[in-house]
Amino acid sequence: MSRTARYTSTDFDEMDKRSRTNLINSLSGYKSANLVGTRSAKGQSNLALISSVFHVGANPALVGLLMRPHTVPRHSLENMIDQGCFTINTVSKAMYQRAHQTAARYPRDQSEFPAVGFEEEYSDTLTAPYVLHSPVRYGLKLVESHTLAVNETVLVVGQIIELLVDQALVSTDGQLDLNAAELVAISGLDEYHVAQSLGRLAYPKA
Amino acid sequence: MSRTARYTSTDFDEMDKRSRTNLINSLSGYKSANLVGTRSAKGQSNLALISSVFHVGANPALVGLLMRPHTVPRHSLENMIDQGCFTINTVSKAMYQRAHQTAARYPRDQSEFPAVGFEEEYSDTLTAPYVLHSPVRYGLKLVESHTLAVNETVLVVGQIIELLVDQALVSTDGQLDLNAAELVAISGLDEYHVAQSLGRLAYPKA
Repeated sequence: MSRTARYTSTDFDEMDKRSRTNLINSLSGYKSANLVGTRSAKGQSNLALISSVFHVGANPALVGLLMRPHTVPRHSLENMIDQGCFTINTVSKAMYQRAHQTAARYPRDQSEFPAVGFEEEYSDTLTAPYVLHSPVRYGLKLVESHTLAVNETVLVVGQIIELLVDQALVSTDGQLDLNAAELVAISGLDEYHVAQSLGRLAYPKA
Repeated sequence: MSRTARYTSTDFDEMDKRSRTNLINSLSGYKSANLVGTRSAKGQSNLALISSVFHVGANPALVGLLMRPHTVPRHSLENMIDQGCFTINTVSKAMYQRAHQTAARYPRDQSEFPAVGFEEEYSDTLTAPYVLHSPVRYGLKLVESHTLAVNETVLVVGQIIELLVDQALVSTDGQLDLNAAELVAISGLDEYHVAQSLGRLAYPKA
């Protein structure tokens, strides 16, 4: 029989660092796996795995993401601010091992694209690179950012100015078939999942 | 054979509202399904389904979430600010239909708990209610908030001060087994998914 365990702030403080990191990172549940593509003024491309992309609004089309200075190299954030744009590239089952590898500490003058085996793709709309084989990828212009006082992580909000998507994934009412795209979700720091739909529910009425 | 479709900002503007909402909401991928529990000064409990919970930091233990004024009743946000605390309750397969129903427009003086069939649970640590049958639920104190200039959504950051979890779900290194908990993810506005792990990957090295 299962039993409920209770943890307090003191218990978190007293845990070993690795267990605390795994436990707290697990609490946010299934997280969308995405690669953020940027390019420096010198033309150096950069690719970073991010698990904090969230919906901000549909009209205008906005998404937010959190850049954590202690775990994500600052290059992505510097490039976003310098160029005013970035791409978000969803991660499929066929890509997740390479996507995970982008989190390794590559030297600043080395692009993650060839290092992990992804191909860059450019459009006329923005300077940031797309990941060619990502089934759903979109380009954004930087709209605003906020630095959190509590731990200096940076919230970035972007407006979607271009979307490149496998047409077969778009249903007649606009919903994307994430299962068919074989997109992955992340839990904790290092666990990847595929998903299976339970179906769609009707708009709830009181 | 599949083919890549390209959408621009103009295409988004010209889509019918429902299709645009579904499409843009789908772009953020699999989103963690959570119920936010709050309580007013008068003791009225409130429960709201949120798909924007994200990890902010492990030490101190922090999560963020976005409150969208146009889609989420303001009651939750008002209660958070008034009481300085709230709970986040993960949603399992057994709960997702009731969780979806909390998004209906109930009158302010009616709690979503009895309306959808969830039981309230209180601890000595905070005044906000937990959802008793949620397999992973945690209490937070409000740490900071930021209002986005672009569309007046509100980013809320909370520190986790209590965690109640089925002990069988916690592995020896702290990782939670989200598959065993049968937690669900959301895509778009109304599609729910269960997930299956592909495994954990080693810390990446350059």
